[in-house]
Amino acid sequence: MYKVGIVMGSDSDIRQMAKAADILKEFDIGYEMVIISAHREPDELIRWCRGAWDRDIRVIIAGAGMAAALPGMCAALFEGPVIGVPLSAKVLDGMDSLHSMLMMPPGVPVATVAIDGAKNAGILAAQILSTASDEAAAEIREKLVAYKKDMRDGVKKKNDRLQEIGYEEYIKEK
Amino acid sequence: MYKVGIVMGSDSDIRQMAKAADILKEFDIGYEMVIISAHREPDELIRWCRGAWDRDIRVIIAGAGMAAALPGMCAALFEGPVIGVPLSAKVLDGMDSLHSMLMMPPGVPVATVAIDGAKNAGILAAQILSTASDEAAAEIREKLVAYKKDMRDGVKKKNDRLQEIGYEEYIKEK
Amino acid sequence: MYKVGIVMGSDSDIRQMAKAADILKEFDIGYEMVIISAHREPDELIRWCRGAWDRDIRVIIAGAGMAAALPGMCAALFEGPVIGVPLSAKVLDGMDSLHSMLMMPPGVPVATVAIDGAKNAGILAAQILSTASDEAAAEIREKLVAYKKDMRDGVKKKNDRLQEIGYEEYIKEK
Amino acid sequence: MYKVGIVMGSDSDIRQMAKAADILKEFDIGYEMVIISAHREPDELIRWCRGAWDRDIRVIIAGAGMAAALPGMCAALFEGPVIGVPLSAKVLDGMDSLHSMLMMPPGVPVATVAIDGAKNAGILAAQILSTASDEAAAEIREKLVAYKKDMRDGVKKKNDRLQEIGYEEYIKEK
Amino acid sequence: MYKVGIVMGSDSDIRQMAKAADILKEFDIGYEMVIISAHREPDELIRWCRGAWDRDIRVIIAGAGMAAALPGMCAALFEGPVIGVPLSAKVLDGMDSLHSMLMMPPGVPVATVAIDGAKNAGILAAQILSTASDEAAAEIREKLVAYKKDMRDGVKKKNDRLQEIGYEEYIKEK
Amino acid sequence: MYKVGIVMGSDSDIRQMAKAADILKEFDIGYEMVIISAHREPDELIRWCRGAWDRDIRVIIAGAGMAAALPGMCAALFEGPVIGVPLSAKVLDGMDSLHSMLMMPPGVPVATVAIDGAKNAGILAAQILSTASDEAAAEIREKLVAYKKDMRDGVKKKNDRLQEIGYEEYIKEK
Amino acid sequence: MYKVGIVMGSDSDIRQMAKAADILKEFDIGYEMVIISAHREPDELIRWCRGAWDRDIRVIIAGAGMAAALPGMCAALFEGPVIGVPLSAKVLDGMDSLHSMLMMPPGVPVATVAIDGAKNAGILAAQILSTASDEAAAEIREKLVAYKKDMRDGVKKKNDRLQEIGYEEYIKEK
Amino acid sequence: MYKVGIVMGSDSDIRQMAKAADILKEFDIGYEMVIISAHREPDELIRWCRGAWDRDIRVIIAGAGMAAALPGMCAALFEGPVIGVPLSAKVLDGMDSLHSMLMMPPGVPVATVAIDGAKNAGILAAQILSTASDEAAAEIREKLVAYKKDMRDGVKKKNDRLQEIGYEEYIKEK
Repeated sequence: MYKVGIVMGSDSDIRQMAKAADILKEFDIGYEMVIISAHREPDELIRWCRGAWDRDIRVIIAGAGMAAALPGMCAALFEGPVIGVPLSAKVLDGMDSLHSMLMMPPGVPVATVAIDGAKNAGILAAQILSTASDEAAAEIREKLVAYKKDMRDGVKKKNDRLQEIGYEEYIKEK
Repeated sequence: MYKVGIVMGSDSDIRQMAKAADILKEFDIGYEMVIISAHREPDELIRWCRGAWDRDIRVIIAGAGMAAALPGMCAALFEGPVIGVPLSAKVLDGMDSLHSMLMMPPGVPVATVAIDGAKNAGILAAQILSTASDEAAAEIREKLVAYKKDMRDGVKKKNDRLQEIGYEEYIKEK
Repeated sequence: MYKVGIVMGSDSDIRQMAKAADILKEFDIGYEMVIISAHREPDELIRWCRGAWDRDIRVIIAGAGMAAALPGMCAALFEGPVIGVPLSAKVLDGMDSLHSMLMMPPGVPVATVAIDGAKNAGILAAQILSTASDEAAAEIREKLVAYKKDMRDGVKKKNDRLQEIGYEEYIKEK
Repeated sequence: MYKVGIVMGSDSDIRQMAKAADILKEFDIGYEMVIISAHREPDELIRWCRGAWDRDIRVIIAGAGMAAALPGMCAALFEGPVIGVPLSAKVLDGMDSLHSMLMMPPGVPVATVAIDGAKNAGILAAQILSTASDEAAAEIREKLVAYKKDMRDGVKKKNDRLQEIGYEEYIKEK
Repeated sequence: MYKVGIVMGSDSDIRQMAKAADILKEFDIGYEMVIISAHREPDELIRWCRGAWDRDIRVIIAGAGMAAALPGMCAALFEGPVIGVPLSAKVLDGMDSLHSMLMMPPGVPVATVAIDGAKNAGILAAQILSTASDEAAAEIREKLVAYKKDMRDGVKKKNDRLQEIGYEEYIKEK
Repeated sequence: MYKVGIVMGSDSDIRQMAKAADILKEFDIGYEMVIISAHREPDELIRWCRGAWDRDIRVIIAGAGMAAALPGMCAALFEGPVIGVPLSAKVLDGMDSLHSMLMMPPGVPVATVAIDGAKNAGILAAQILSTASDEAAAEIREKLVAYKKDMRDGVKKKNDRLQEIGYEEYIKEK
Repeated sequence: MYKVGIVMGSDSDIRQMAKAADILKEFDIGYEMVIISAHREPDELIRWCRGAWDRDIRVIIAGAGMAAALPGMCAALFEGPVIGVPLSAKVLDGMDSLHSMLMMPPGVPVATVAIDGAKNAGILAAQILSTASDEAAAEIREKLVAYKKDMRDGVKKKNDRLQEIGYEEYIKEK
Repeated sequence: MYKVGIVMGSDSDIRQMAKAADILKEFDIGYEMVIISAHREPDELIRWCRGAWDRDIRVIIAGAGMAAALPGMCAALFEGPVIGVPLSAKVLDGMDSLHSMLMMPPGVPVATVAIDGAKNAGILAAQILSTASDEAAAEIREKLVAYKKDMRDGVKKKNDRLQEIGYEEYIKEK
C-alpha cells in the first residue's frame, strides 16, 4: 500500500509535525518521517524527494518555518502532490512561512494548510489517497467518513451538555 | 475515469477559474464546472457537493473572493480533497479570501494554492488523481512529468537566448 | 417576547461568547445558546438557522475563530440580522476570522463587532430589538439608556478620584 | 413608519453611500441622508444624532474613510443600532477606517460591514427594521425573502447558461 | 505659564499616560490630567476641550487604544496642537489605535507618536511650548538641550563600560 | 517672526510637500523649503538642522518615503518640534516610511501625520506657532479658528445642496 | 578580476534585474546573468551555483518574486555572499518574496535589499568586492566614493535650483 | 587583517548582537563592538563610521529596533558594505525596524538579514571577507565550508536518531 512522506526542516518542528503522523497512524496509513533541511542539505533533499515515488510515497507533507523553501523544493523535485504546513516562529505569526510556500509560481503547486495545521495535512493526505479506485482507498474513505461522523458527534455531545446545564455551569465544568 | 469538480461563487470569477479547466483539458481530465454561491444558494451547494462522489468527482476545486466560505463548506460536505483558490478583489489583495479558506479548523482541511492561482489548482488536482495505481493515473503522471519537462525547457530556451544576445537586446526583443 | 440566538463553532469559544449572554440576561432578553460547527455539522446549522425565526429568534449572534464561516452561513440561512464576533486564536490576532465574516458579498451582510467583542454583540442585539414600536422594545431602550448612563458615571467617578488624589496615588490604588 | 439615517463624513463618499440609499428605496424604507463631518462639525453631529430617534430614525448607517470617527461617535450619541461602512481611500485599502470603527470599546458597538460595503449596510438596516412584530416589519421581511430568492435565481440562471454553452463561450459572451 | 492637557479614554491607560506626566514634571511644566471617554462621555469631552485654551492649556496629549476616536475629537474641538498616543491592547499591537488617530482628514491634524510612546508625547509637548519667544519657553528649551545631553552621556557611559569589559562581561553585569 | 523649515529627501516629494508650504502661505507664516537627503547628504543635513533655530525656524516639517530616516535625524539634530510626513511609494502604501518615523525611541519624538498628509503638517506647524503668548501667535490662532469655520461652512453648504436636490441629482452635479 | 553572478527565476524579472547589471557595467565589474528557476530547474541551479566560485564569481545577486526560493537556495549552494532582491507582483506588494528570502534560518544568510531594489543589489555587490586589499578592490572603492559624491551633487543641484526659483516654479519645470 | 564593526543603538540590544560577535570569534575574525545611538549621538556615529575604514573595518553590522535609522545612516557614512539586523520589540514583531532599514533609496543599500538574525549577520560578514584573493580570505572560506558541513552533519545526526527510535521516542528525548 502507498505511503506518505513527512519531511521537516528542523527537529524543532517535530512536535507540530507529529500531529500529521498521529492522524496517519489512526488511519492505518504508512508514512516515512524525516528531518531534512532544504537550506542546509540540498543534496539530501534531492535524493530523498527523487526516490520517494519508488519507495511508494504518493504524497509528501512538508513542514517548515520562516523562509520555508522546503515545501516548494519538494514540489520541484517530486511529481506527486505536496502538502505544505507553515509553522509559526517567535515573530510574524507564521506569515513568513505561509508566503514562502503558498505563493508558488504556475506549474509547481504546494497544497498549503493552516498555519501550524499539521493535523489537517495528515487528513488531507488521507483524502488524497482515498481518491483511487482500489480497496485500500475505499478503506481510507470509510475511515474518513467515520472520522467526520465522530467530529459531528463530539460537537453534538458538547451541545447537548450545554443545553442540559446552561453556559454558566458548562464553563465551570470545563 | 474520475473527474474534477470546479465550483466558483460568482461568474465574476470565471476568467480566473477557467485556468484550472484549461489545464485539466490539457491533461485530458474530465471536469464539471459550476457556479454556486455558498452564501446565496446553500441548499444547491449541499446538493452538488453531496452528489459529487457518485458523479465520479474525486477532487473539488473551489475558488472564491472576499469572505470565501465556499471552499470550507465544500470541505465540510465532500469527503475527498478540496482545493481552495483565494481570489483577489478590489481591496485587501486576496488576504481576506486566503484567511477564509486557509485557516480551517482541525478535521476539515482545504488545500489552498496561491492567491489567483487557479492554474496551480488544476495541476494539483491532476497530481492528486495521479496517485492511484491504475492505468489512468499512470497516464496523468506521464503528462505531469512531460509538463515539468516542458517548463524546464521553456526556461532553458529563454536563458539560451539571453546568453546569445545579452540582456539589453533581450529586453528589446520582449 | 423575541429572543436572541447565540451560536458558536466550538466549546472553546464559550468563555468569550458568555459575555454576550451575560449582557442579554442583564437586559432581561431571552436567548438560546448553542454550539454548532459550520464545518462539522452543516445540516445541524441549516436546521437550527431555518427554524430560528419560528422559535421567536430575531437576531443571531455568531462567534467563531480562524476561517470563520459560521456567521456568514447564518446570514445565508436566516433572514433577520446576524451579528458576527471574530475570535482571536494562537496566531494572526483574529484577523483571519475578521476577514472571514466582515468581507461578505453584496446581499448577505454580517454585522461585525470588534475582535473578541462578544459583549458588544450582546448590546447590539439589544439595540436591534429596541427599534420596534411595542412595549418590550421600549423597555429595552430604557435599559440601554440607563446602561449608557452607568458607563458615563463609571468613567466620571474614576476621573473624580484621579482629580482627588493625583495619578501617582491612583496607580498605587489600582 | 420608521426611517434609516445615512450619514457620511464628506461628499466624496456619496457614490459609495448612495448604494445604501438605493437598496432602502428598493425596499420602500424611508431614509434621511446627510453629510456631517465628525472632525469638522462635532456640534452638528451631536444635534443630528440626538434628534434622530424623535425624527423616527431607528438605525443609523455611517460611512467614512481614513481615521473614521463618525460611526463611533454616532454610536456614542444615538441609542439605537449604528452600522459602520469603512471606505477605502488612496492608501491602506480601507484598513484604517475599518480599525477606526470596528474596534469599539465595550458598551458602544458599531455593526461594521465590509470595506466599501454600503449596499450591505442598507440590507442590514432593512433586516433590523424587519425584526419588529408589526405590519411594516412583516412587509420588509417579505421583501428580504424575495430579495434573497432573486439573488438565488440570478446565480442559478448564470449557472444554467454556463452548463448550456461551456465556459469558453460564456467568457466570450460576458 | 502655559499648561499641557493629558486626556485618556479609560483608567486602564493610566500607567502608560503617566509617563507623559512624569516628563512634564521633570521639565516643570504644568499639566491637567483627566479621564474622559470620547465614546462614553462626548458632552464632557466637548466641555473639557472647548474650555482648555482658557484654562491656559496650549497642547493636548490624548492617549487611547482600539478605535481611538479621542485624539481626533480633541483635534476637532481644540484649536491648538493635539498629540496622539496610540496604545496597544490584547490584539493588533496598537495598529488599530494608530490608524484611528494618524489618518486624520485634511484640516484636523493629530501629531501622532509611537505606539505606547507616552513619554515622547510629553517631550514633544515640551518642545512645542519651547517655541515661543518668552522666558518660560527659553527655560524649557534649556531643559530640552540638557535632556538630550543627558541621553547622549548615558549612551556614552554604557559604551565606555562595554569597551572596558567586553560584551561577555557586560551581558553578565546587566 | 518665526519660520517653519520644510525639508524633503528628494525632489520627487515636492508635489506632496508643496501642500505644507501652500497652507503656511495661506496663514502668512514664513518658511524655508529645502531638498536634503539624510542618506546622501548627512553633513548637509546636520548643517541645516543645527543652524535652523538661529535662522528663526521653530518647527521642522520633514517628508520622506521608504526607509525615511530624515524626520528622525532632524529630531536628533534640532531641539524644537519635528513633524514627520510619511510618503507613499510604489509598494507598501507608505507603511515603510510611517514605521521609520513614527516608532522613534524615547527622548526623540517625531510628530507624525497621516500618510501623504503634508497639508496637515502645515496646519500642525501653524497650531504649534499659535501657542505662544505674543501678537504673532494670536494672529495665527485667529486664522486657525477661521480656517476651521470655513471647513465647517464648506461641509454645511454641501449638505444644504444635498438636502435641496437629493443624492441622485447631487451625484450627477459632481 | 572577480565577477558577480546575477540570477533570476523568470524572464519576466529581467527589466528589474537589468538595473543590477547596469550598475555593475558602470563600475566596470564583470557579471554573468542567467535565468534559472529554483522550482522548475533545481538541477540546473545546483550546477550553476556550485560552479560559480570556480568561474570567479564572488557574489551572487538573486532576484525573484512570490514564493522566492531562489536566493535562499543560492545561499544553500554557494559559500560566498548572496544578495536577494524581492520583486513585487500583482498582489501583496512583494511582501511574499521578501518573507521568502529575508527570514533565512541561522547559518544561511541572504543579504536582502529593498523590494524591487535591484540597483542597490548591484551597488552592494560592488561594495563587497571593494573590501579586498588588492588593486581591483581599490578601484571599485574609488568609483563608489565618486558615485556617492555624484549623488550628493545631484541632490545639491536640485536644491540650488529650488532656492533659485521657488517651489511653484520648480514643480512647473519638472 | 580586516575587521568587522558591530554597532547597536542601545545596550538593550546587546544580547541579540552578541550572536554576531560570537560567530566572528568562532571564525577568528576581528571585530569592534560599540553602542552608538543614531538618534541620540549623531556626531559620535559620524565620527565612528567615517574613521572605520582606516581602522581596518571592512564591513559594518548595525542592529537596531523600532524606527531603526542606524543601519541606513551607517550606509550613508561608510563606503563599504553595511549589514542591517532588524530587532523585534514589544509591538509590531520587528516589522518597523525591518521597514526602516530594508527600504533604502537607490544608491545606499543596507544588506538586511532576518528579524533578530544577528547570527546570520556575522556569517554574512565572514562571507564578505572571504571574497578577497588573499590568504586571510581563503582561511575564512575554509571555515565557512566547514561550518556548512557541520550544520549538515548536525541535521543528519538528528535524522539518524529519528530513524532509529521513531518520533514518539524522539519527542520524549528532547
